[in-house]
Amino acid sequence: MISVDTAIKIVTDKTEPLQSRAVPFENTMGLCLAQDVQSDIDMPPFDRSAMDGYAIIAEDTAHAPVELTVIESIAAGYMPTKKVSHGQASKIMTGAAVPEGANAVVKFEETEDIQTDNRVKILRSIDKGSNISKKGEDIQIGQTVLYKGMVIRPQEIGILASVGKSYVEVFPTPTIGIISTGSELVDVESKPSVAQIRNSNGYSLAAQARRLKADVEILGIVKDTKEEISGMLQKGLKKDILILSGGVSMGEYDLVGEVMKDLHTQIYFEKVALRPGKPVIFGRKDKTLIFALPGNPVASFVTFELFIYTAIRKMMGFSNPQRITIQATLETDIFVKRKRREYRPALFCARDNTWKVSPVEWHGSADLLATTRANCLLIVREDAQKLAAGQLVDVILLD
Amino acid sequence: MISVDTAIKIVTDKTEPLQSRAVPFENTMGLCLAQDVQSDIDMPPFDRSAMDGYAIIAEDTAHAPVELTVIESIAAGYMPTKKVSHGQASKIMTGAAVPEGANAVVKFEETEDIQTDNRVKILRSIDKGSNISKKGEDIQIGQTVLYKGMVIRPQEIGILASVGKSYVEVFPTPTIGIISTGSELVDVESKPSVAQIRNSNGYSLAAQARRLKADVEILGIVKDTKEEISGMLQKGLKKDILILSGGVSMGEYDLVGEVMKDLHTQIYFEKVALRPGKPVIFGRKDKTLIFALPGNPVASFVTFELFIYTAIRKMMGFSNPQRITIQATLETDIFVKRKRREYRPALFCARDNTWKVSPVEWHGSADLLATTRANCLLIVREDAQKLAAGQLVDVILLD
Repeated sequence: MISVDTAIKIVTDKTEPLQSRAVPFENTMGLCLAQDVQSDIDMPPFDRSAMDGYAIIAEDTAHAPVELTVIESIAAGYMPTKKVSHGQASKIMTGAAVPEGANAVVKFEETEDIQTDNRVKILRSIDKGSNISKKGEDIQIGQTVLYKGMVIRPQEIGILASVGKSYVEVFPTPTIGIISTGSELVDVESKPSVAQIRNSNGYSLAAQARRLKADVEILGIVKDTKEEISGMLQKGLKKDILILSGGVSMGEYDLVGEVMKDLHTQIYFEKVALRPGKPVIFGRKDKTLIFALPGNPVASFVTFELFIYTAIRKMMGFSNPQRITIQATLETDIFVKRKRREYRPALFCARDNTWKVSPVEWHGSADLLATTRANCLLIVREDAQKLAAGQLVDVILLD
Repeated sequence: MISVDTAIKIVTDKTEPLQSRAVPFENTMGLCLAQDVQSDIDMPPFDRSAMDGYAIIAEDTAHAPVELTVIESIAAGYMPTKKVSHGQASKIMTGAAVPEGANAVVKFEETEDIQTDNRVKILRSIDKGSNISKKGEDIQIGQTVLYKGMVIRPQEIGILASVGKSYVEVFPTPTIGIISTGSELVDVESKPSVAQIRNSNGYSLAAQARRLKADVEILGIVKDTKEEISGMLQKGLKKDILILSGGVSMGEYDLVGEVMKDLHTQIYFEKVALRPGKPVIFGRKDKTLIFALPGNPVASFVTFELFIYTAIRKMMGFSNPQRITIQATLETDIFVKRKRREYRPALFCARDNTWKVSPVEWHGSADLLATTRANCLLIVREDAQKLAAGQLVDVILLD
């Protein structure tokens, strides 16, 4: 039985980023860049006014107030046509190009219109360069503005638009198939008979994968027979990742592992020292990564976040694909049960300027309702003897 | 000029949650419940085995090891048909119903098969109730499992599936139209001439809104004429929220505010004591909320996160719709420029078990590239004189 850390390392090592492709830039939110991006323009493209006001020669205002002659009005989108000489000013709008000759912009609030034709009074003296953004100050032609591996957020979308990168090379999201195994399962619309339960894992796993932008197909429910499992599994081999839920523990009807071996799946691990979620199988058949997860809903949830999360993000080109842990102060004592690493549903919050965490009431790996009161998983390490209130613990944030 | 806090309060007060509707439960990720949800089943639906093993009478193991007669094998999905009496055991799989008479399950690892017919050796004594999850232990019929206002995450999807809630009442996402104003703007595919720039705000605003799951339509670019702005604005009035970018400062061509008033838009505010983003207009025309944002990209970005974020989430039924702030320790001194509240692009990280923040290099409200190096906005409050390294400051996390 391998440790959680070893299992995550195996998943990382056995997963490759998907082949990158060029995508319209608007559709790249949350994806990783597979190329560096250079600018084809200077930003600003010219010496630009940062204010609505008057472009003037700063030296003319040395003995302000002073009156100047207005020779032109420059809107954004139009180039100035006149050079500003001593004694002159051009009215200018935010974003417009500063005219030749001028070396500062006085904002409207520091001027006064004069009733006579085309004159303005500048009320205060102003420094050279004031309210002018210099050409190329933010971005220069040819400059690399975004780098391979960066994750696209709204601000990166804005930069891609600014530099005219209408198609950009990114790592795509994987396709995922989900199979729920178990003769006791019925679909959500059905009323379970006395020995049945509804298929919930198929849908919660799909939601977990869709949260990462993966392209998910729920393939359905199969009964606990080798024929049904094998048939559906082979249908799922066109996906990048195939997830099976249930059928992986020691029972007579836990046939998933057997079917995987019958199909000559290369198995990388079968058991992880983890609670909940010990019986979890990871392998590869042809180009498809296969994860077989335990059927208990919290075990299914946790093993997704540890292993499949890592695989999806590695395929999507993330350099640190696994869930990050952060530290928080434990608010109650925790009795440690076993020598497997434990992940417990817990509540994380800020209080008195520090981050606190406390486990929520939880009946075990079947009790999914407990996780609806949680926003993190509290990690009890393999070597922990006891966790005492006040000590720092690691948590994985879920929301 | 009103404060940021007042402006956010006005947005919250003037925005109503959208009319709730019933949606297939799989499509509710990230939405708020508009109803309480009750369970139609007990979970577990029967006294259920938590292990693969043998259902027995605990008292029979008092002097273990002991041999018992195996009378049945019970798979998940099938009900037991035989009552367990003293001296007997039924083989049972995880998730199956515990047979009448039995009061504990011994896991396989603590038993030994015997070569003679239908006998098993129990190696250790076991307590009554061991490895049995009691009927209704996690969820009881009629119990309220999810509450109005809760946000749907994968675990809530799993609960909805478990209790058979195939359609559920949620608050929908708003429809949003985005108009970019400015005679200097060209689209992404075009190469700007010397006085032009590309329309980036339209796309970054769309990405900001789509990140919140809103249904966005980019309506396009209009030139700085009242006719064009007015025509496009009226086309946008079928949306829940209409966003205009640019045309709201003091320049001669900043016509958006005028057009809004010409159309008898009810204006709630026009200027906020904020940097970047002072000229921001918020109003309502018929049923559409209208936000007119400054054209500088960082001002556009920040005003979205403060005001439109709040409006979208209020429409979506969030009880705390606005961006939350958290505290971090400042790593460098900050010189405070003005008496408006400032939001600066900054980098937030954990170091030495505390949260640190430092501003990134930033040339001002046109410098969107700086925000690609940032993961938060650092807040400089109106009353701040100076911010010194080591003090606690508020930040808004962006990712």
